[in-house]
Amino acid sequence: MVEKVIGSQLLQSTPREVRSSIYKINPIILNRWSPRSMTDEKLSYEELMSLFEAARWAPSSANSQPWRFIYATRDTEEWNTLFNLLVEGNKRWAKNAAVLIVVVSKKEFEYKGKVTPSVTHQFDTGAAWENLALEASSRGLYSLTLIR
Amino acid sequence: MVEKVIGSQLLQSTPREVRSSIYKINPIILNRWSPRSMTDEKLSYEELMSLFEAARWAPSSANSQPWRFIYATRDTEEWNTLFNLLVEGNKRWAKNAAVLIVVVSKKEFEYKGKVTPSVTHQFDTGAAWENLALEASSRGLYSLTLIR
Repeated sequence: MVEKVIGSQLLQSTPREVRSSIYKINPIILNRWSPRSMTDEKLSYEELMSLFEAARWAPSSANSQPWRFIYATRDTEEWNTLFNLLVEGNKRWAKNAAVLIVVVSKKEFEYKGKVTPSVTHQFDTGAAWENLALEASSRGLYSLTLIR
Repeated sequence: MVEKVIGSQLLQSTPREVRSSIYKINPIILNRWSPRSMTDEKLSYEELMSLFEAARWAPSSANSQPWRFIYATRDTEEWNTLFNLLVEGNKRWAKNAAVLIVVVSKKEFEYKGKVTPSVTHQFDTGAAWENLALEASSRGLYSLTLIR
């Protein structure tokens, strides 16, 4: 599975959605959302590493951690490589992003010395991605997932 | 995809793991963990609904929300039905749980009136589950995922 995802800062003036939940939930979960536009503000290296650190703490089958993240920050050669993987219609959402991240999951895992197909690699990777998105949200950063 | 999952309260006397992250992350992400034993304390209906509410706010492809949760609380007939779906080796972890939850994802979704296979149903459902697990964790509740 390959996903293209983008984490970036939201335009300060963009109005926040007014959200209310039926049952009380933690505000960091309620306030995570996927904006359609991004500013071109940069992320610091520390900030970016905190996002991946959050992903790393997600649960996974037999703690296999099947997620891998390929990223490129703006104004690098690699950014263009990832940007050009996006379908045309999605490029406009991504062009001002601070970072592009490709989320990949490993289809097999080694358990007790034996390589077996993982039935949960996508599920586990979705959980890791959500940790990343929530960590971003709790820092006032926003993320948008674009499917290839 | 079908997963058996359990949310329940952790034995108060169970020592917490001492966790530290390399890069700073939100404590609710760092402190979520999967205990191996559960107390038999009950969850209130409101509390349980807050867990599902958290799941509901997860992002998904075209906002398709492909996750479905089948749950049973302890001391109900339905609890036995879900409990008996567990493989023998996992029953000991689940027997004192307050609630058993089966996580299911929908493999197809309707987009612009057309039913199409979803390539991200497991990924999206993993994200929803992680929201549920983090909401639980932020309430001092703990969850454990058992694969069928």
